[in-house]
Amino acid sequence: MKKIPVAILAATGAVGQRFVQLLADHPWFELTAVTGSERTIGQKYGQAVNWIVPGPMPEKAANLTILPTEANIDVPVVFSALPSKEAWEKEPYFAQGGYAVVSNASAYRMATDVPLLIPELNPDHTELIASQRASNGWSGFIVTSPNCSTTSAILPLKILQDNFGLEAAIMVTLQAISGAGYPGVPALDMLDNLVPYIEGEDSKLEIEPKKLLGEVRHGRLHLADLRLSAQANRVPVLDGHLASVSALLHDKAAPEQVVEALQGWRPPAICAELPGSPAQPLIYLPEPDRPQPRRDREAGNGMAWTVGKVRGCDVLDIRFMALTHNTVRGAAGGAILNAELLVAQGLIERP
Amino acid sequence: MKKIPVAILAATGAVGQRFVQLLADHPWFELTAVTGSERTIGQKYGQAVNWIVPGPMPEKAANLTILPTEANIDVPVVFSALPSKEAWEKEPYFAQGGYAVVSNASAYRMATDVPLLIPELNPDHTELIASQRASNGWSGFIVTSPNCSTTSAILPLKILQDNFGLEAAIMVTLQAISGAGYPGVPALDMLDNLVPYIEGEDSKLEIEPKKLLGEVRHGRLHLADLRLSAQANRVPVLDGHLASVSALLHDKAAPEQVVEALQGWRPPAICAELPGSPAQPLIYLPEPDRPQPRRDREAGNGMAWTVGKVRGCDVLDIRFMALTHNTVRGAAGGAILNAELLVAQGLIERP
Amino acid sequence: MKKIPVAILAATGAVGQRFVQLLADHPWFELTAVTGSERTIGQKYGQAVNWIVPGPMPEKAANLTILPTEANIDVPVVFSALPSKEAWEKEPYFAQGGYAVVSNASAYRMATDVPLLIPELNPDHTELIASQRASNGWSGFIVTSPNCSTTSAILPLKILQDNFGLEAAIMVTLQAISGAGYPGVPALDMLDNLVPYIEGEDSKLEIEPKKLLGEVRHGRLHLADLRLSAQANRVPVLDGHLASVSALLHDKAAPEQVVEALQGWRPPAICAELPGSPAQPLIYLPEPDRPQPRRDREAGNGMAWTVGKVRGCDVLDIRFMALTHNTVRGAAGGAILNAELLVAQGLIERP
Amino acid sequence: MKKIPVAILAATGAVGQRFVQLLADHPWFELTAVTGSERTIGQKYGQAVNWIVPGPMPEKAANLTILPTEANIDVPVVFSALPSKEAWEKEPYFAQGGYAVVSNASAYRMATDVPLLIPELNPDHTELIASQRASNGWSGFIVTSPNCSTTSAILPLKILQDNFGLEAAIMVTLQAISGAGYPGVPALDMLDNLVPYIEGEDSKLEIEPKKLLGEVRHGRLHLADLRLSAQANRVPVLDGHLASVSALLHDKAAPEQVVEALQGWRPPAICAELPGSPAQPLIYLPEPDRPQPRRDREAGNGMAWTVGKVRGCDVLDIRFMALTHNTVRGAAGGAILNAELLVAQGLIERP
Repeated sequence: MKKIPVAILAATGAVGQRFVQLLADHPWFELTAVTGSERTIGQKYGQAVNWIVPGPMPEKAANLTILPTEANIDVPVVFSALPSKEAWEKEPYFAQGGYAVVSNASAYRMATDVPLLIPELNPDHTELIASQRASNGWSGFIVTSPNCSTTSAILPLKILQDNFGLEAAIMVTLQAISGAGYPGVPALDMLDNLVPYIEGEDSKLEIEPKKLLGEVRHGRLHLADLRLSAQANRVPVLDGHLASVSALLHDKAAPEQVVEALQGWRPPAICAELPGSPAQPLIYLPEPDRPQPRRDREAGNGMAWTVGKVRGCDVLDIRFMALTHNTVRGAAGGAILNAELLVAQGLIERP
Repeated sequence: MKKIPVAILAATGAVGQRFVQLLADHPWFELTAVTGSERTIGQKYGQAVNWIVPGPMPEKAANLTILPTEANIDVPVVFSALPSKEAWEKEPYFAQGGYAVVSNASAYRMATDVPLLIPELNPDHTELIASQRASNGWSGFIVTSPNCSTTSAILPLKILQDNFGLEAAIMVTLQAISGAGYPGVPALDMLDNLVPYIEGEDSKLEIEPKKLLGEVRHGRLHLADLRLSAQANRVPVLDGHLASVSALLHDKAAPEQVVEALQGWRPPAICAELPGSPAQPLIYLPEPDRPQPRRDREAGNGMAWTVGKVRGCDVLDIRFMALTHNTVRGAAGGAILNAELLVAQGLIERP
Repeated sequence: MKKIPVAILAATGAVGQRFVQLLADHPWFELTAVTGSERTIGQKYGQAVNWIVPGPMPEKAANLTILPTEANIDVPVVFSALPSKEAWEKEPYFAQGGYAVVSNASAYRMATDVPLLIPELNPDHTELIASQRASNGWSGFIVTSPNCSTTSAILPLKILQDNFGLEAAIMVTLQAISGAGYPGVPALDMLDNLVPYIEGEDSKLEIEPKKLLGEVRHGRLHLADLRLSAQANRVPVLDGHLASVSALLHDKAAPEQVVEALQGWRPPAICAELPGSPAQPLIYLPEPDRPQPRRDREAGNGMAWTVGKVRGCDVLDIRFMALTHNTVRGAAGGAILNAELLVAQGLIERP
Repeated sequence: MKKIPVAILAATGAVGQRFVQLLADHPWFELTAVTGSERTIGQKYGQAVNWIVPGPMPEKAANLTILPTEANIDVPVVFSALPSKEAWEKEPYFAQGGYAVVSNASAYRMATDVPLLIPELNPDHTELIASQRASNGWSGFIVTSPNCSTTSAILPLKILQDNFGLEAAIMVTLQAISGAGYPGVPALDMLDNLVPYIEGEDSKLEIEPKKLLGEVRHGRLHLADLRLSAQANRVPVLDGHLASVSALLHDKAAPEQVVEALQGWRPPAICAELPGSPAQPLIYLPEPDRPQPRRDREAGNGMAWTVGKVRGCDVLDIRFMALTHNTVRGAAGGAILNAELLVAQGLIERP
């Protein structure tokens, strides 16, 4: 198959770099353009970027010349790592200009006709694209992926919802510093310390799951009827967001039943067609001290959820811990998987 | 006032060392004897111990000769930092032998006639001592202090209970490595990592508050009628246990009312007599990113609770964060304060 | 004795805050004024500052109103924590205006008629003040303290020089992050990592000791005839700079002789008059694994050198490790001690 | 080519696990047997081991049954990760029994007729094997690889020796915690701290380079005539030993000449045949803040030296920093490369 040319908007930042890395040898996509800030336009990517992702910078990307973020790039698909405010302004122009905008930005995540997508969870939410196009008169469209903190526990929550009905969840997240980019979090905050605060994160954790776990019926989104409460913490870990969750179920379930449901869960059939979806998206770890960020974040090439410590909760019903790699599954990797889904569903055309 | 001679049982370990440090210039107590393991008996404390507490070893303690842990030491009060199993065997002998055993060990914490004490919370629980003595035929007695993880959020929970009625709480703790002693936690577990497991800690967090918040009526203990659920995590922090708590109240309360209750709380009158009780045992921090372990653990000389981030919880009623210094307030400092209370109440005689 | 009113120039930064802290209960000096940047002028210090020093902000300082850094403050002594470029411009104006400028900035450290001072090393270098005043026509004067990295091993080097003659030294420093202020070093550089680079630090380490170990004869400075070579590294430690040193001596000496010289060294007599000079400025630690930053930086209230691991060097003559607290002895504490020396020598008048 | 069956002696420890990992897909060797301590004999490797190496345990290895460390295993080659004392006793039995013993243990590193090997440095040292066999009457033989700390700077030192003559070197190493195995270094030693001591390491750093840089003439080893002085430090880094080196050269050389020599160096021709030798074993980094452990340790799949900061030294001649991955190049990876060399040289027979 001939590859689909793609561009990355805001390719020089932390998430942009992960896009560059994960697209380097992608079987379906070929990175042919990158955009960046005023300061970097016209420079070679390899010169302009302060590469902070583990591993070397892909050579082909290094030779790309950084373009302005304008809707005149000759590709059908753009991955957006734009800051929220810029995404707000620019993503609609790209959609209007006929691009498939696969965004990791927060700007349009909660917009009613923009899918907030995770292929293993809600691949049918791409139905919203039709009404999005119609109401805006766009030839292109926008799809988004959730915040990295939301991602950390969302798949086990989905499985609880499907099997037992999910009524409420209390989440405490322990989040890695890579989520804040570079320079990001000062070392003085993370040495012999942690910080019980990440701006805007608690509310994302309390809202985004309602959309991800919601239903699209007759082309319209219905948020899940859930109560959520969250506390996000920054901890001295490089990569990997860990969530401690207590969930209230509609149908009571013993911990063993929950473990069985987690282990018995199979991804939607379409996921088998997506090169970036791991064979086993959810891995249950029976050890009492897992998952741990450094030891488990690379599971499924950074695309799997590891879940452990399922046990009863005397206040709600069930407790568990869940972990994902925040810059892979929780950001660039998740968005690329969304683009793969769009290709598989025919919403992005193969050349 | 002439000082009361005291001994420390198991003075060479991490908690034992904190006892040594905190007793060094105590206005009421004078450390005159230390006990240790077989291996160290007969050596000078200064020689035998691998001093891991910040600051220098008190000189007087360094010159004490380590004794066996036997009930023939010429002091009226022993502070016990014994390992649980040894505490189980030996603390009753000391109580029988007429000693006031002020223990930091877990062995007798949940025994029905042994007070689990925090002077700011439940100074009246020392009433249990009478029945303890009677039923065992002891001339001495045992009092205990709670696990360091339990301590971290217990005072704000007490204030919620007193003001609004407390029905349930979900707690996630982020606990410092000093709680595990030396060598304790391997660096390989704490570099770019954290561990969602501390042996036995979840269940202590789910049981001990019921006793601390319980009532002693007619000399008998009634556990508080509470549902609790906890997840303890080990994080790369030296000192200071931070707890994220969601609480279900009997009487609904807005966050502002809770803040007011926390700020308006005053310790029981007897605390004013105790040299180790800080002027302000609970400090409310209005900043959105506090409390933080390194920045707040020394509040009130390590004896104060710092509390922050009070806000509504969409699942239960109220969320907050609370922090205490785990080896001071949560261990040796807490136990010494208990001994001060016993002196103030006349249960330990002044010389 | 009535206290001498003093001001801090640039009191809001990391070093400025340490000045504030260390002057809080100073027996000779009283902090009556603070200056700050444009942005903070007119605000209360307590409001304007992001307090990063361990321990609470002194209350009196919190109530001071921040002034512009101009030579019209009504105090005889100013402590300068100005950035280098600003120090370059402003310190001379203060000196001209009659102030004793006690600076921690690097701007004038190597100026031939400005003393680079450590009271335990070279209290006689204040002789340079007379020629400094004469040649500039100043009624005031400037004295400086060395870079925190230079400080770490300078006292043991001085003792080697005095006892055996010092010809050369190779130094590798492991430096704490507090030296870079806040936000300073990114956590992404210090987690599972270290950085073999601190801008400008190698050359300071290779130049400043020549002045500190030099001689003032007939009012003129003669640099020590030394060869120096240095590599400064940033490591994930909060406070405390550790230096690994190999030294070439004029008169060969066995390690035991060096240890004896270190232990036998006594500070100049005038140090006994200075409240900030520790009783024992150099502490030799015989254990093979000391000094360590966290365990030894507080020695002598952060004002002592701890030295260890003296042994033969097969390439030069003698190896050793030395440690000081970089923001206390190596910055604010060192500068305040310089001011004490100036008082004791009559160069700052007592009121 | 049919693969050569190999065994790992002491396969359960930290180095043993790296052997298991690096042999998993080796093109020439096939892991068919593992040995372990008394406690683990008879168990499946997957059950018995506490896997601490990043990445999953190779499945085939997991199914091997752990054997006792006895010279009756049916393989021609054994990799030894034995503790020093056990290596001392057992490696000769294996050599006598006809095995090629490729050891990472320190026991026989300095024995005059045992090669201490790094293929890029001294592939001809395998000449010693003939005399080793003759003098001991062995049909097998022992070769060893150096300590991980020695490895860190040895290739640049070799290049200096070859180009300019090397007379002396002063080395300060900053060593990762993985070198100490699990549980290894306590977190209490590595949080806001470092330890200027690793048992036995300074002397290994001062001896082993003399052999590695020595010459084998007429079947006899001549140590290099070098003066060395070393200080090893443990720092809070997971993997990667960084060395700061000052070197005295026979022929003076400017930093640019040294950089040219480093960049112009090519490995011995035989290295091109070895699958584990990276295309570019030495990578010179021009940035002033490199190499850094986390950012550079994976260079060349963990088998390359990264070198930077070449500059003049005012005391000796040249300074530089060098880094290697301590458990790959500095341990298991280095030993496997030695075995590859022995195959290429015909000292281990291909099947």
